[in-house]
Amino acid sequence: MGINILESDSIYLGIDGGGSKCRAILVNGLTGQVLGTGLAGPANPFNNYDQTISSIVDAASKALIDANYNQGEINKLIVGIGLAGVNLPEPLLKMQQWQHPFKAMSVTTDLQIACLGAHDGHDGAIIISGTGSCGFSHVNQKVNMIGAHGFPHGDKGSGAWLGLQVVKQVLLSLDGLEKPTLMNELLLAKLGCSNGLDIVSTVAKQTSSFYAKLAFIVFQAAEDGDKTAIAIAQEGAGYISNVARTLWLDNPTRMSLIGGLTPKLESWLDSDIRNKLSSPIHSPEMGAVIYAQQNTQR
Amino acid sequence: MGINILESDSIYLGIDGGGSKCRAILVNGLTGQVLGTGLAGPANPFNNYDQTISSIVDAASKALIDANYNQGEINKLIVGIGLAGVNLPEPLLKMQQWQHPFKAMSVTTDLQIACLGAHDGHDGAIIISGTGSCGFSHVNQKVNMIGAHGFPHGDKGSGAWLGLQVVKQVLLSLDGLEKPTLMNELLLAKLGCSNGLDIVSTVAKQTSSFYAKLAFIVFQAAEDGDKTAIAIAQEGAGYISNVARTLWLDNPTRMSLIGGLTPKLESWLDSDIRNKLSSPIHSPEMGAVIYAQQNTQR
Repeated sequence: MGINILESDSIYLGIDGGGSKCRAILVNGLTGQVLGTGLAGPANPFNNYDQTISSIVDAASKALIDANYNQGEINKLIVGIGLAGVNLPEPLLKMQQWQHPFKAMSVTTDLQIACLGAHDGHDGAIIISGTGSCGFSHVNQKVNMIGAHGFPHGDKGSGAWLGLQVVKQVLLSLDGLEKPTLMNELLLAKLGCSNGLDIVSTVAKQTSSFYAKLAFIVFQAAEDGDKTAIAIAQEGAGYISNVARTLWLDNPTRMSLIGGLTPKLESWLDSDIRNKLSSPIHSPEMGAVIYAQQNTQR
Repeated sequence: MGINILESDSIYLGIDGGGSKCRAILVNGLTGQVLGTGLAGPANPFNNYDQTISSIVDAASKALIDANYNQGEINKLIVGIGLAGVNLPEPLLKMQQWQHPFKAMSVTTDLQIACLGAHDGHDGAIIISGTGSCGFSHVNQKVNMIGAHGFPHGDKGSGAWLGLQVVKQVLLSLDGLEKPTLMNELLLAKLGCSNGLDIVSTVAKQTSSFYAKLAFIVFQAAEDGDKTAIAIAQEGAGYISNVARTLWLDNPTRMSLIGGLTPKLESWLDSDIRNKLSSPIHSPEMGAVIYAQQNTQR
């Protein structure tokens, strides 16, 4: 038997939802104490609305269990949700119209909560490079977004973009139109393929998350001195540096680079950009809690 | 009431199937006379096997009707089929195992029949640039294939590739990361969009055929002197020129450029390549008839 939430408690749930998973964090609003966390499946309402709300409720339930609360207490939670896809009007409206099971809910973009988390609720800017890429600033109530265009037409400097360059390059070289590079062997091994036709079969119809898993090949080959891989890493990082440079024009007080590619990408950025980056203070899901605290009418 | 096919008649059906449509041609094998044609929906067994065989039968029926033959006569046809997707082993096997309604059937790639058609059944080479791109040569019973990698990781110099470059370039410029070009206005008008977010919504989840419809923007802007568009056209055409140069190493007697992009692309090719191109003699579906004549045991 779990415990119940009292009316006098202020229990906040922060949700960070994206194309591959949904993270929840349960926080005592008075003490700031983290009470529990939960992890569930994909939550991008542009891709799949039903799956999104199911993942959100699933992550919330897991956080309640983790905190030793009763499941029924879900209707006492004040919830902030940041989601990929809600920069587009239609998915945002659909989420706002959701007959949710919570006490209160406020929805915004995954970028907004990541920025709030990175800068402890204050103004600032972030660049995300994970499966996709984008830049975001929030300064004096003005929001600026760069990128977040999606795959394959955008998301330059992201994991999916890097992986796509690997596949393109290796296929061209296997056709004899470009010189083979260190990336050939790495890609064939990673995909378990023995020739170009194998690769074509394997990559057909794959999505961005597949390509993002190939991004390490660029960095590995580049570190071993492969000139083509170095050029790809430089082109991707050059784009991210330009995004940062453009965001600095908004005069944010801090800027953080976040997302799964951060550890590898950082050293490839232009040094003036790299030296001005600050580590994120909190996680995006904690940013969602901050968003709920700032935006929910109690 | 239609007419029947006599046992002594040699009636051939040629099929050219691809990702957007399937063409059929009915030919008298003794006189070479075209008796009828038919057009049906998509026929790429890698994408959809059931749809493929349904499109093939549909196109065949329409050609029979066009020729004033009875539908029941389908079982007297000697059929050659060229299909996209059957360069991969699995779709090819599935097609070969089809319990087809014809008297005889032989299946090969869309490239092979296009090459046979272009060179009247003789050895030669072709480069296709339509929605996708690839090169193919058939010389002394040796086949060579370049490209045909698919979208978005390959098909450089194709309509889809050109359209993708337009979308990428315009989105970067609307983010202020690149200079706007003549392509901006052309793309916004073509898509009925007013800003980058509109474009992102519109292009999300689109396939290669969507992007191929945007290829004209590159040529239009390039003809009006847009430097970025000129660079894209040159990069795409440069790739096609390289494919041609590589195929000439196989010593084909003739080489043809075919596919929907041909009229626009031709003038952008390197002049040494352009001057050595020959016009295709027959259509790919007529190449499928030739394939059936060369390969079917009577």
